[in-house]
Amino acid sequence: MKFEKNKKILIVGLGLIGGSYAQALSDAGYEVGAIDVKKDSVDFALTHGYIQHGRDFPDGGYIEKFDIIVFALYPHIFIDWIKENQHFIKKNAFLTDVTGVKGSVVYKVQGILRSDLEFIGAHPMAGLESSGVENADKKIFEGANYIVTPTEKNSMESIELCKTLGKVLGFKNISVLTPEKHDEMIGFLSQLTHCIAISLMVCKDTDELSRYTGDSFRDLTRISKINDVMWSELFSLNKQELIKQMDLFEDKFQKLKEYIQDDDIEKVRDMMRLSTERRKKCEKSAAKKEINN
Amino acid sequence: MKFEKNKKILIVGLGLIGGSYAQALSDAGYEVGAIDVKKDSVDFALTHGYIQHGRDFPDGGYIEKFDIIVFALYPHIFIDWIKENQHFIKKNAFLTDVTGVKGSVVYKVQGILRSDLEFIGAHPMAGLESSGVENADKKIFEGANYIVTPTEKNSMESIELCKTLGKVLGFKNISVLTPEKHDEMIGFLSQLTHCIAISLMVCKDTDELSRYTGDSFRDLTRISKINDVMWSELFSLNKQELIKQMDLFEDKFQKLKEYIQDDDIEKVRDMMRLSTERRKKCEKSAAKKEINN
Repeated sequence: MKFEKNKKILIVGLGLIGGSYAQALSDAGYEVGAIDVKKDSVDFALTHGYIQHGRDFPDGGYIEKFDIIVFALYPHIFIDWIKENQHFIKKNAFLTDVTGVKGSVVYKVQGILRSDLEFIGAHPMAGLESSGVENADKKIFEGANYIVTPTEKNSMESIELCKTLGKVLGFKNISVLTPEKHDEMIGFLSQLTHCIAISLMVCKDTDELSRYTGDSFRDLTRISKINDVMWSELFSLNKQELIKQMDLFEDKFQKLKEYIQDDDIEKVRDMMRLSTERRKKCEKSAAKKEINN
Repeated sequence: MKFEKNKKILIVGLGLIGGSYAQALSDAGYEVGAIDVKKDSVDFALTHGYIQHGRDFPDGGYIEKFDIIVFALYPHIFIDWIKENQHFIKKNAFLTDVTGVKGSVVYKVQGILRSDLEFIGAHPMAGLESSGVENADKKIFEGANYIVTPTEKNSMESIELCKTLGKVLGFKNISVLTPEKHDEMIGFLSQLTHCIAISLMVCKDTDELSRYTGDSFRDLTRISKINDVMWSELFSLNKQELIKQMDLFEDKFQKLKEYIQDDDIEKVRDMMRLSTERRKKCEKSAAKKEINN
């Protein structure tokens, strides 16, 4: 299937991301519908022109109209949704999602899917501290990464469709990764950093320290304000990879502690010099990315 | 001694902090001199009006002119400096420093000091990524904390003088803490956070990850670009307290890993809810501080 203007798109789940998808796709001229159990969310999206029509239950006669379906729901919910409702879905339709972990989702979905349907996982690396369709805003995709995670079950044509979807949504960088590489990357860059921030923030009651709090502590704990329901599910779905990344960090942290304990100043300095060098390289490639775009 | 306008101030060590002290005090109308082994630094400070005169060696006839001496040198260097040169210092002079750790410095200095002299440790919690007198700028003190760490050997009058110095320099918050409380606070808020950032940055070569790097990883590693000579000395001087804070963090991090490993989702969520609540409180008290100032 090609991503032509006559394709009808269904968003299942009208939260912050689902709502922003709907807005971006409607603005791009596509016919967009939505299903969400919260009637208020459907009404909000209708009133704001994010969708042209919607339902607050999985209406079979409605579902069968769509060529493309985007699941913007918690993974455990949308896998059940597919099981229960896929007999309604149009022949040869294309399905995708917005979940932040891939390995534990993509293969499960592809394993239960009707053979004429095709599912490719995608991860829009965008978000806000707030949630809900009321905060939807397609601008969150500007400058952000969109990662497509196909498997050997997917056709080149559908991979292209999924990449085009990311472009139409307004993402800056579209990448293709295996589900495994994606999960390793996310385990390290996003999940591990959240684990560190959470652990630091719960160390002690910082009330009496608040007047001394400087930028360092503030920077390191910014992401410790977290949606516990969503993130605990993401951690659990990526458990194996996340534990690997946590072990990696813990090993370095323990080594540094050991060097300090043993007054091995040269080893402490070596580690500091390596971190300085890598951070500088990081800043350089970020600057280069800015110039190239 | 009171901090009157006729007091002559000597800055020993013209780096970023020493230079910024000199600039602020000269601008406030005090007579300021400096000693630094680098003639270029002295010349730079003279040319820019940060000091009225200076020396590039510990000239006894020069040292004896000053009522107040500020040591803006690495701790191990200025303790030796005091040992070698304190016989030149004017009777009843007041001495202070700018070191980031206190317990291991303050008692040592007070232990070797001539009985008519008085030393109070102070920690200006300000700095820049750059160093050297060329980057000196008294603006770095605006909005920053200045912590005075007296012991029972110090007089009320000198404590007041030291606090007034902080005000004249332009600091926003002036606090008094024991050297021990100071070191615990710094061990947690500053040194531990730097240890975490360094450990995270050396985990892996992030070159191939750089295109996916988002705000989380960038925030958590900003301070991993670090002056290895200065920070390794600070870590070593505060070793006992720092190790305690590192243990505290490691314990929470290991607990979180254990909960994830055991699929104990409720405990993971509990920790996330606590971190969210504490971080929100942190933001609130930061906002309140803004309003009050």
